[in-house]
Amino acid sequence: MTDMIGLFAAVLTTISFLPQTLLVLRTGKTDGISLCMYALFTTGVAGWLAYGVLVGALPIILANAITLALATTILTLKVRAVLETPSAPLPAST
Amino acid sequence: MTDMIGLFAAVLTTISFLPQTLLVLRTGKTDGISLCMYALFTTGVAGWLAYGVLVGALPIILANAITLALATTILTLKVRAVLETPSAPLPAST
Repeated sequence: MTDMIGLFAAVLTTISFLPQTLLVLRTGKTDGISLCMYALFTTGVAGWLAYGVLVGALPIILANAITLALATTILTLKVRAVLETPSAPLPAST
Repeated sequence: MTDMIGLFAAVLTTISFLPQTLLVLRTGKTDGISLCMYALFTTGVAGWLAYGVLVGALPIILANAITLALATTILTLKVRAVLETPSAPLPAST
């Protein structure tokens, strides 16, 4: 029962990034998404993946490999949007 | 060393939701945020918290209690924004 709850939680937190990735890919809108969040989160998930490899835990490796692919996609699109956004223009003098 | 990587990963993935929560609280903008993501993610984190309590693992409990508070805040603001958004008006006939 406890293992089932853990498995259920792992599946939900892993697949949850799929709708966010699809939303960003479809709309191209990343305004409401925090660059700082995805920079920290993607680094953290890469850390979890390394941890999973080091302790040889396949569930940790699988879940974090999927999440890393999705989070990296979101982070890449956000970084691209930030780089493409021109600086705010100075107000017109008249 | 392996434990340090796991701890580093846990801290990063936990605190990563803080800048997203602050961004949503400050701007009130939730357009680019996926309701589906936060519904699945918040449920999953609640599952992880239940798992942590059942196996008596304090690090799992602490990390997921913090993440749950942050994710619930984002989810609540997103749900409120969705409920407050009027349906798209019909195009004017002229």
